[in-house]
Amino acid sequence: MKLDLQGIFPPIPTPFENGHCAPHRLEENLAKWNDTGLSGYLVLGSNGEAPLLSEAEKLELVRVARQAIPAEKILLIGSGLESTDATSVLTYRLADLGADAALVLTPSFYRDQLTPEAMRRHFEAIAEASPIPILIYNVPKFTGVNLSIEAVVNLAQHANIIGMKDSSGNLGQLIELREKLPSNFQLLIGTDSVFFGGLAHGLRGAILALANVAPRECVELFNAVEDEKWDVAQALANRIAPVGRAVASRFGVPGLKTALDEIGYFGGEPRPPLLSVSEKVREEIRLILQKAGLLE
Amino acid sequence: MKLDLQGIFPPIPTPFENGHCAPHRLEENLAKWNDTGLSGYLVLGSNGEAPLLSEAEKLELVRVARQAIPAEKILLIGSGLESTDATSVLTYRLADLGADAALVLTPSFYRDQLTPEAMRRHFEAIAEASPIPILIYNVPKFTGVNLSIEAVVNLAQHANIIGMKDSSGNLGQLIELREKLPSNFQLLIGTDSVFFGGLAHGLRGAILALANVAPRECVELFNAVEDEKWDVAQALANRIAPVGRAVASRFGVPGLKTALDEIGYFGGEPRPPLLSVSEKVREEIRLILQKAGLLE
Amino acid sequence: MKLDLQGIFPPIPTPFENGHCAPHRLEENLAKWNDTGLSGYLVLGSNGEAPLLSEAEKLELVRVARQAIPAEKILLIGSGLESTDATSVLTYRLADLGADAALVLTPSFYRDQLTPEAMRRHFEAIAEASPIPILIYNVPKFTGVNLSIEAVVNLAQHANIIGMKDSSGNLGQLIELREKLPSNFQLLIGTDSVFFGGLAHGLRGAILALANVAPRECVELFNAVEDEKWDVAQALANRIAPVGRAVASRFGVPGLKTALDEIGYFGGEPRPPLLSVSEKVREEIRLILQKAGLLE
Amino acid sequence: MKLDLQGIFPPIPTPFENGHCAPHRLEENLAKWNDTGLSGYLVLGSNGEAPLLSEAEKLELVRVARQAIPAEKILLIGSGLESTDATSVLTYRLADLGADAALVLTPSFYRDQLTPEAMRRHFEAIAEASPIPILIYNVPKFTGVNLSIEAVVNLAQHANIIGMKDSSGNLGQLIELREKLPSNFQLLIGTDSVFFGGLAHGLRGAILALANVAPRECVELFNAVEDEKWDVAQALANRIAPVGRAVASRFGVPGLKTALDEIGYFGGEPRPPLLSVSEKVREEIRLILQKAGLLE
Repeated sequence: MKLDLQGIFPPIPTPFENGHCAPHRLEENLAKWNDTGLSGYLVLGSNGEAPLLSEAEKLELVRVARQAIPAEKILLIGSGLESTDATSVLTYRLADLGADAALVLTPSFYRDQLTPEAMRRHFEAIAEASPIPILIYNVPKFTGVNLSIEAVVNLAQHANIIGMKDSSGNLGQLIELREKLPSNFQLLIGTDSVFFGGLAHGLRGAILALANVAPRECVELFNAVEDEKWDVAQALANRIAPVGRAVASRFGVPGLKTALDEIGYFGGEPRPPLLSVSEKVREEIRLILQKAGLLE
Repeated sequence: MKLDLQGIFPPIPTPFENGHCAPHRLEENLAKWNDTGLSGYLVLGSNGEAPLLSEAEKLELVRVARQAIPAEKILLIGSGLESTDATSVLTYRLADLGADAALVLTPSFYRDQLTPEAMRRHFEAIAEASPIPILIYNVPKFTGVNLSIEAVVNLAQHANIIGMKDSSGNLGQLIELREKLPSNFQLLIGTDSVFFGGLAHGLRGAILALANVAPRECVELFNAVEDEKWDVAQALANRIAPVGRAVASRFGVPGLKTALDEIGYFGGEPRPPLLSVSEKVREEIRLILQKAGLLE
Repeated sequence: MKLDLQGIFPPIPTPFENGHCAPHRLEENLAKWNDTGLSGYLVLGSNGEAPLLSEAEKLELVRVARQAIPAEKILLIGSGLESTDATSVLTYRLADLGADAALVLTPSFYRDQLTPEAMRRHFEAIAEASPIPILIYNVPKFTGVNLSIEAVVNLAQHANIIGMKDSSGNLGQLIELREKLPSNFQLLIGTDSVFFGGLAHGLRGAILALANVAPRECVELFNAVEDEKWDVAQALANRIAPVGRAVASRFGVPGLKTALDEIGYFGGEPRPPLLSVSEKVREEIRLILQKAGLLE
Repeated sequence: MKLDLQGIFPPIPTPFENGHCAPHRLEENLAKWNDTGLSGYLVLGSNGEAPLLSEAEKLELVRVARQAIPAEKILLIGSGLESTDATSVLTYRLADLGADAALVLTPSFYRDQLTPEAMRRHFEAIAEASPIPILIYNVPKFTGVNLSIEAVVNLAQHANIIGMKDSSGNLGQLIELREKLPSNFQLLIGTDSVFFGGLAHGLRGAILALANVAPRECVELFNAVEDEKWDVAQALANRIAPVGRAVASRFGVPGLKTALDEIGYFGGEPRPPLLSVSEKVREEIRLILQKAGLLE
């Protein structure tokens, strides 16, 4: 049975209280998101501050998330680490807790030595070892690495590598990937700025920070395109664009958490070295949310 | 009377024969393009090899172009040079030959010293001196300079700066510019990869290398979006995307000229240091054109 | 008692056998290096494949290293992680095992949010918590982050931040840092390409991959500059420059390990995703070592 | 007779008065520089604002410079343009006015199409056509192009390509070039930050903005290295380093012109889009010059 990744997936942030993971806050948030038409969730992504979490915290968060997410919704987890073997082990453990597929970040520290061959072996070793399907996670903004289209096309031949989140923010790259990848390979839009552009070209799924804050609007936009209500889609896309920028490129995870606080979810503080946004930025985020109709 | 830049404008290449400008080839090409529904033309753009032309050649090309272009079609010319004064003088001379508006490239050689203030004074001095309206031309791929959104918003206040061609290839930047610029400022899509994405978000004009090779298709796509025939638009956008890549990012001006040769226009050789494409690339371009339905 | 970081420190690689850390190989290598005039060692640096090691492995490696390193030689350890708190905890544990100072890598994953203020709080929190002195580790090649000179000057005011390894490879940056930092702040050259250039300008210490493979030569060059034997220094610098390139920028950690194998130390395989060099590259490295007089 | 490019060459700025070239100011400056031990001059380099000059101005400036420069001093001229043929023609005309060698900037506008083969043909065509020897000018800061070492090694085989100014600012690249180029190929240091580092490694010539402002000090440093007076050299290098930064990377051509004004040469205003420095920066430059002992 092929996992179907159509629709909208928020990469959910990790709630902290007094510096510790706060699983009950995660449950509260999920209870709200569960009502919004989302197809599922990504836990332990970049927006989940995965690089700032211990392995024990990761296991606990996924355990809690699985229980709080209805069986019919998909649980994606981020399991990429710099080491190939460590990634395989973590993927295995998270799969065991009920994850449906693993999003594996490109390694990046030794980027000059990470030849296409090294990348190929890395992803294939992880895919071989994994009991659940693998998605490639390409995010140059955080890693300084942009997988070549050829590399992705090669990896797509592996039976257990079923898709990719491309967060290059480059619509041309998304279009070219779509053209060259097999039609059953699931290419997910990974940046808010090319969300509507990607849907317009025919893509069918997205993992977006924006979807944490505007889940209904993202789902509505997706449906409007499916239903060919383009005027609705365009108006919606332009309305939520400033929110997407605020919670992603402009203010990052701290901005996303602030926006969640403002709309009645639990956002809270990020973990250092990330700092909470200033009061001035909080005010700006509030205005952006208000203008987009996301505050009552 | 405000100049209306809706629709599609190809940045036409400069035809050479034996290393010299060949104005009659330009006339032949324009005679064909004139029948395709284009709104006008850009002469002396990057695709026109402007940095490789003498001033005398530029004047001759514009003179010839103006005569070969019907009065109801718009003639845009590229007049940007590194020097502010030299740009003003060239703009004046080209205006005198009947250009409707000038596309002014950002200066870039001394980029570390080109502060927002230096850029502002540069464009304003040119706009003051120019008898025709000015469009800002932002193309980081060639210049290594990306004008900030704030800088553009400031420049847009000048009565004689009426628009901008953004060739950053960044859809997010286009969307943010559209949001923040006055609604009568004419923002033109300048990269094939975000053509359909930009139209989807509501933009109304484009200057695209692709429009040289697929003028009817580009116009048809533009009209399909205007008419809300989105299925037609999507299919068309995905069909011509590989052509856009071939004549822009992949093979540049030499690729564009090759494609023109293949579809029955005059392409010819680029001027050194640009080299003609290899026979192998020519064959690849032929296949791409064929697959897109652009060869009979 | 101030820790004095004059002289040469190799960032030693981590030996693996069958994929596992091989502490006895580390002991063998250290026994050889101990005879070469090095001032001390960096364990768990980038060349030590720190991002590919588990915490348990890190603790074991430092424990073994401390026992194998004479008390009069300095043991530096790399303890930087993305999380501020996790870095503090690891620094504490490694200090407990006898490390003399900790080299703390700049965090980098959330680089767009890592403002000067965020960086300042990160390093100061770690310096406050650490029982041993802290050195800043700036290595844009791996992190995509280059700390500003102002940021370093500010951090240098903290009593427990006593120095910095700058691996920008930018001699101008090293010179400017030297000028602006207090004279008791210990600025260490971190790139082989500016080793001699940095000494020429008056710097007094270096942490260099090259020093693993050419420890005597690096020490000799350092001493030649101290003794004002510039002809000797210049000849030596130019002789070992190709080796420095091979084990750093060109072939990275896999190249360094290969070179160690060739000169009779234990190099072994890197940990995936890093791949061993090809036979052809091994041959090239052998020739480079031979030409530099590093093979018997 | 081989042209010998040992020693120090300032890339002299172009004096303007009321926006026009002021040849008598050039003569005044040259009269002063002629007494300082410089080996010669570069006219029409980047610091000469060459991209902002007309061809007529270029010819006039070189004509005047040749008359004001003693026959035993070398006159280098910058003749690089984007077009291969235009560069050949300009080189020929400037050679005719008595230039000893031409520094040819890498073309850069169409950088993605400027393959090694295109670069090779460009430089070889110019070298073939030129009556005077050619030097390659590599300056990524202005062009966004960094010639590969292999490309330079290939070009160095041409009898009329006798040297290169490398302004990458990368000491490692200079060292590798020196290693791989024939010993009679004249590699010139082109960045102040690696001036002393480059001399330390054995290079024998430099073209430096700094040499406009501190000609005697640059010559003295060069001689000190020749005479193996390294203490003198080191002290001098560290003393003038802040001046080099001010007139190059920090404040560019406007900063250089300001510094010349301050030390009693004619600096004057740059040509727009370059702007004069603010009064605050002028004061900072004055302090830097004073601290370096360059003001009476």
